Amino acid sequence: MKTRIAILGYGNIGQAAEQSVLAAPDMQLTGIYHHNDNLDVIDADAVLVCTPTREVPAFAEKLLARGICTVDSFDIHTQVADLRARLNRVAQSHDAVGIIAAGWDPGSDSVVRTLLLAMAPNGLTYTNFGPGRSMGHTVAAKAVAGVKDALSMTIPLGTGIHRRMVYVELEAGADFATVEQAILHDDYFAHDETHVVAVPSVAQLNNVAHGVNMVRSGVSGSTHNQRFEFNMTINNPALTAQVMTACARAAVRMKHEGRPGAYTLIEIPPIYLLPGDTEELIRQLV
Amino acid sequence: MKTRIAILGYGNIGQAAEQSVLAAPDMQLTGIYHHNDNLDVIDADAVLVCTPTREVPAFAEKLLARGICTVDSFDIHTQVADLRARLNRVAQSHDAVGIIAAGWDPGSDSVVRTLLLAMAPNGLTYTNFGPGRSMGHTVAAKAVAGVKDALSMTIPLGTGIHRRMVYVELEAGADFATVEQAILHDDYFAHDETHVVAVPSVAQLNNVAHGVNMVRSGVSGSTHNQRFEFNMTINNPALTAQVMTACARAAVRMKHEGRPGAYTLIEIPPIYLLPGDTEELIRQLV
Repeated sequence: MKTRIAILGYGNIGQAAEQSVLAAPDMQLTGIYHHNDNLDVIDADAVLVCTPTREVPAFAEKLLARGICTVDSFDIHTQVADLRARLNRVAQSHDAVGIIAAGWDPGSDSVVRTLLLAMAPNGLTYTNFGPGRSMGHTVAAKAVAGVKDALSMTIPLGTGIHRRMVYVELEAGADFATVEQAILHDDYFAHDETHVVAVPSVAQLNNVAHGVNMVRSGVSGSTHNQRFEFNMTINNPALTAQVMTACARAAVRMKHEGRPGAYTLIEIPPIYLLPGDTEELIRQLV
Repeated sequence: MKTRIAILGYGNIGQAAEQSVLAAPDMQLTGIYHHNDNLDVIDADAVLVCTPTREVPAFAEKLLARGICTVDSFDIHTQVADLRARLNRVAQSHDAVGIIAAGWDPGSDSVVRTLLLAMAPNGLTYTNFGPGRSMGHTVAAKAVAGVKDALSMTIPLGTGIHRRMVYVELEAGADFATVEQAILHDDYFAHDETHVVAVPSVAQLNNVAHGVNMVRSGVSGSTHNQRFEFNMTINNPALTAQVMTACARAAVRMKHEGRPGAYTLIEIPPIYLLPGDTEELIRQLV
């Protein structure tokens, strides 16, 4: 009996989610829906909510209220705890499970940060992002007068410090120096080392590659200099969608176990993310 | 109200466990016991079983039967699933939780392997160990006639292939060439690239440093070339003991939640490894 999955939203992440669900041996794709479709017709055990982040809370709430499990990759770090509290109420009263902030950061990186803290409770973890596109900074650069299109790349400089490389395609007649100053003084960019580069076509730079380098030096017991590093270079929407798909499996399982509620990825047993028999997985992975 | 922890066994890991428990803000150390002490006097919520691996199953079983939670770092990979089945029965019938194979490999590395498999279901993960001492190979080298003391170091060569560097201190009158041939033909060493080196004192080489390099290249959905890497260089007993200490916290919590049984680390929500308030941890880590 396969788990029945629907996808809501069909942008970069929704399209990648379709591939992940189709590749999952234990899942069946029951439908792909757009944000203005009638959600009452969705028939699934779990829905991957692949809408823009700001639309996630309302959609997830609506689906959970129908007893359908949800997974999202809500990525506003400072609002994750509040979203969890909001969705937890509706999930618990309708016997559903919502797994939130389940991309790679927040998401799988959060699990790595948690594990590193358990392994060496004192110390510092640095999360260095990139090279890769920052959505928030890209939107901010696009909003500047005279900018036709823009791309803001995040470049890791270590110890959690990042450089912003902002590629701009100017509107006809726009003055580069004026655009450059507007970007450098925008609050999104004013606090980081930022370089603005004029290019003939931003579309030609399109690349969904991203990466992370997490570093921790810490103390286990009374032993200092315990060193850990986690690196990845990935296709961003493909990884986000894959983590969401794995979480749909966990959500349905936790619902069947009678544990409704809203959870972040660090609250989920990692083995629940995988298909297959528990004992077999333990023999393979432990 | 602090969690009351006892330690059974006071070798390298037991001594490091003492440091980890003393450093934990939510724990109280109630006693340190040796393997020939009377275990009936142990009074604790959880016991860190720091005995040699082969003695773990019997000790853990005895403690679980008294309703006391246990944590061990049992490290014979091929026997972990069987140990889990054996301890699960006694833990469930005595309302206790045992967390097994909870060191770094098996242990925290198992969690990383699980997470990488969820993030890119198709592909290869290589776990490359070292440089660091292999206990099993060291014992095998020590057993060779003419060897007074020995140390077998594991050197990672990538793609899960390892070199063995075997340092031997000879007994008076022993012939190096004979010892070398005996080691090279021992089943422990015959399948790997092995170098035997005579040294005046093995004790002078003593170093509990170890490390791992885990690499995965895999596929998320239909997207290939997703690349992940996890590295650490650590004090081996200090990390093992720290992971065990974190698991004691999780074991007691799961007992209070009414979920008795035996678990491996990949079956535990990562946040259960940490002290502190769930919402605060989510704000900090997710």
